Amino acid sequence: MDKEQRLSTEPYKGVRDFYPEDWAQHGAIFRKIRRVLRMNGYAEYQASPLERTELYESKGNDEIVSDQTYTFEDRGGRSVTLRPEMTPTLARMVAAKRRELTFPLRWFSIGNRFRYERPQKGRLREFYQADIDLVGLPEGEADREIVWLAYRIVKAFGAKDEDFKIRVNDRRLLMSAAEAAGCVTPDIARQYLRLLDKKDKLPAETYRAQLAAIVPRDPMAVVEEETEGPVAERRDAVKAFIESVKKWGVSNVVFDPTLARGFDYYTGIVFEIFDTNPENPRALFGGGRYDGLVSLFGGEAVPAVGFAFGDVTFQDFLATHNLLPAPNAAPDIYIGTASEELVPAAQMAGMNLRMQRVKTWVNLRKRKLFDQIDEARKRGIPFFTLIGDEEAGSGMLRLQPLRDELGRKDDERWKKAYSVEDAAHVMREALKATEA
Amino acid sequence: MDKEQRLSTEPYKGVRDFYPEDWAQHGAIFRKIRRVLRMNGYAEYQASPLERTELYESKGNDEIVSDQTYTFEDRGGRSVTLRPEMTPTLARMVAAKRRELTFPLRWFSIGNRFRYERPQKGRLREFYQADIDLVGLPEGEADREIVWLAYRIVKAFGAKDEDFKIRVNDRRLLMSAAEAAGCVTPDIARQYLRLLDKKDKLPAETYRAQLAAIVPRDPMAVVEEETEGPVAERRDAVKAFIESVKKWGVSNVVFDPTLARGFDYYTGIVFEIFDTNPENPRALFGGGRYDGLVSLFGGEAVPAVGFAFGDVTFQDFLATHNLLPAPNAAPDIYIGTASEELVPAAQMAGMNLRMQRVKTWVNLRKRKLFDQIDEARKRGIPFFTLIGDEEAGSGMLRLQPLRDELGRKDDERWKKAYSVEDAAHVMREALKATEA
Repeated sequence: MDKEQRLSTEPYKGVRDFYPEDWAQHGAIFRKIRRVLRMNGYAEYQASPLERTELYESKGNDEIVSDQTYTFEDRGGRSVTLRPEMTPTLARMVAAKRRELTFPLRWFSIGNRFRYERPQKGRLREFYQADIDLVGLPEGEADREIVWLAYRIVKAFGAKDEDFKIRVNDRRLLMSAAEAAGCVTPDIARQYLRLLDKKDKLPAETYRAQLAAIVPRDPMAVVEEETEGPVAERRDAVKAFIESVKKWGVSNVVFDPTLARGFDYYTGIVFEIFDTNPENPRALFGGGRYDGLVSLFGGEAVPAVGFAFGDVTFQDFLATHNLLPAPNAAPDIYIGTASEELVPAAQMAGMNLRMQRVKTWVNLRKRKLFDQIDEARKRGIPFFTLIGDEEAGSGMLRLQPLRDELGRKDDERWKKAYSVEDAAHVMREALKATEA
Repeated sequence: MDKEQRLSTEPYKGVRDFYPEDWAQHGAIFRKIRRVLRMNGYAEYQASPLERTELYESKGNDEIVSDQTYTFEDRGGRSVTLRPEMTPTLARMVAAKRRELTFPLRWFSIGNRFRYERPQKGRLREFYQADIDLVGLPEGEADREIVWLAYRIVKAFGAKDEDFKIRVNDRRLLMSAAEAAGCVTPDIARQYLRLLDKKDKLPAETYRAQLAAIVPRDPMAVVEEETEGPVAERRDAVKAFIESVKKWGVSNVVFDPTLARGFDYYTGIVFEIFDTNPENPRALFGGGRYDGLVSLFGGEAVPAVGFAFGDVTFQDFLATHNLLPAPNAAPDIYIGTASEELVPAAQMAGMNLRMQRVKTWVNLRKRKLFDQIDEARKRGIPFFTLIGDEEAGSGMLRLQPLRDELGRKDDERWKKAYSVEDAAHVMREALKATEA
């Protein structure tokens, strides 16, 4: 085949190939997250990334819907969108079974989301996200649990409180401050919120100029200065909420009146987890209360609060702080073969070891013993055993450790021949000792 | 909001919403599969469902590529396809890192695939599939391991050998029989293979007529009747392969000379696992050897053999034979609250129980005790405990079992108050006893 006809090995632009070691790292992170969530009574749900486009047209972030989605017509003329976020799907599913479900729901979903963006550090066209929601309870305990759960997840990886900050604000505080500052309609107030959301990305002067075009006074000044009235009451309520979260042992939660969050559907508290390391200055987690979303599908409002976080930024955070969990994808033992004729005996030994919960790698190739051991090391496998005529006959195994911390090759343990059961036991004990 | 403006709660046509109990069932099945694969040294990889369309244009199944894919142009004018199957992606990933990877690869991937089909029983537009491949070894031991592994996966669910059949054939046998029967070019032989693949769906007469239009003699007669020459040799080699698989204890593997498999890329053995129950007469697993796929990306050929199976047909099989694994998604204990003021104490008790690996559900609502117990039962939670003023002060818990098999409410065990550690232990022992 000539060069021009060759297929490219590149993945589609802005998405990732996960080779086994990448996926094992990804899996180690999300396994820990799933564990924390399940222990807290949260159950996983899932849906297709294909959604009807109209789901994203009513609420959400205008910019995302119009410019940043993958939207196309299917062969039947239906407009389809690859989900850019999970919350609208969650609201749809809750609305569809609102009569059958036992509220409150403690639900989470982990999966891929799609945005048509220019690929850059920390921003991909496909990323994984965990969405965690507590649905069916009004503000109060539920909000506290959600903020605390976000904190617990970061802590589960061994992060210290000084490694990150939880910034909390309230959408109603922003809206009433905007009104008090002179935004004459809710639409103008929302325009202000969107500007505020971009504040950190704009030069200070540009921000001030754009702000002045929308509202006569800076709403932030209103938040700071009011001593009574609705703005002051709302501000003090957010501060009281933050104090109550601190009582649960969360030392790094702070009030941030400039926090807006991108989505239009928030109706109460909003919050963000921020990396305190200046090298990774991005929001890791974001969430808030959205009491109006489910009723877009008809029926009474169902109050809800939740948060989400993406794999790319979170993995960057863990890497920066040296907190990445160790993936464990390698088999426990490489079963070498003295000749090709011994492969069936090696497969049989493998079968027996697997019954003892030992992950095995059976060699199927004709290779020199030295090369087989070398290959086992390359694969990160801690033990090697050879099936020769003797072992095929007796069923007994000799174990050779392939890592220094498992003891020297001439250690007494590695001189004996073991039954499959004993071999499994000896390997497990030796591996446990290295972990401790 | 008036009725016309309401958003529909329906998912996109032909895809599924997985509510927590559905996803728990799905998860229980794939957890078992992952376990079997990992024990056998297979490592999981993953890629985006978004692929460049050209990946599917060179080889594969013509019908799938032209009529049954989701293909669209992105905003940058690139043609994108939602992967209809995983093998081309695997070949692309292997080709991209062929110099760095340690062969052979024992790899698997579990994820969603997309086909634009008319939704019907067992056929959806989005389904989950497990793809299992052994890459880098020529035919022989590798093929045997792959067929045997497919068998082991079905057996891991408790299926009996008579519940299913493994049909084996060889693409080269079909090609040489087609040639011997009078197909004058490889293209015509492939036309015959495609017709053969549809045989079971066509009326016998239609099949015979279409066959006669392609080839003067029925190639199946050639397979049966030849006693020497390339067709007979190939047939006897397949039969010898099947005998060698039987020696590994696989009693239900049979030779099926009519088995073609849909994809064009197969180059050696092909096989299928079929449900023997006449109510579910579909192939559950399908696979074979494809030695030419990786070299489409340039470089030397990399031999490979593998198989795949979909969640919908496999779940049907398990349900038909009463083999569905029990999902376990419910928390272990419901922590009730005597008043709203006691929620923080209940959350604290939850935190302590979770440290003892107990999955907890904390009630956040003001509800009567009776309603809380009723809710716990509805959620399938086996234990209930109430946090009143006494428990909040002492940190001791009383346990109430919510299932008959956990013993009567007046059993001695359920009269005492326990420390968190002891409560965790007592619950674990009681649950273990019901499983045995």
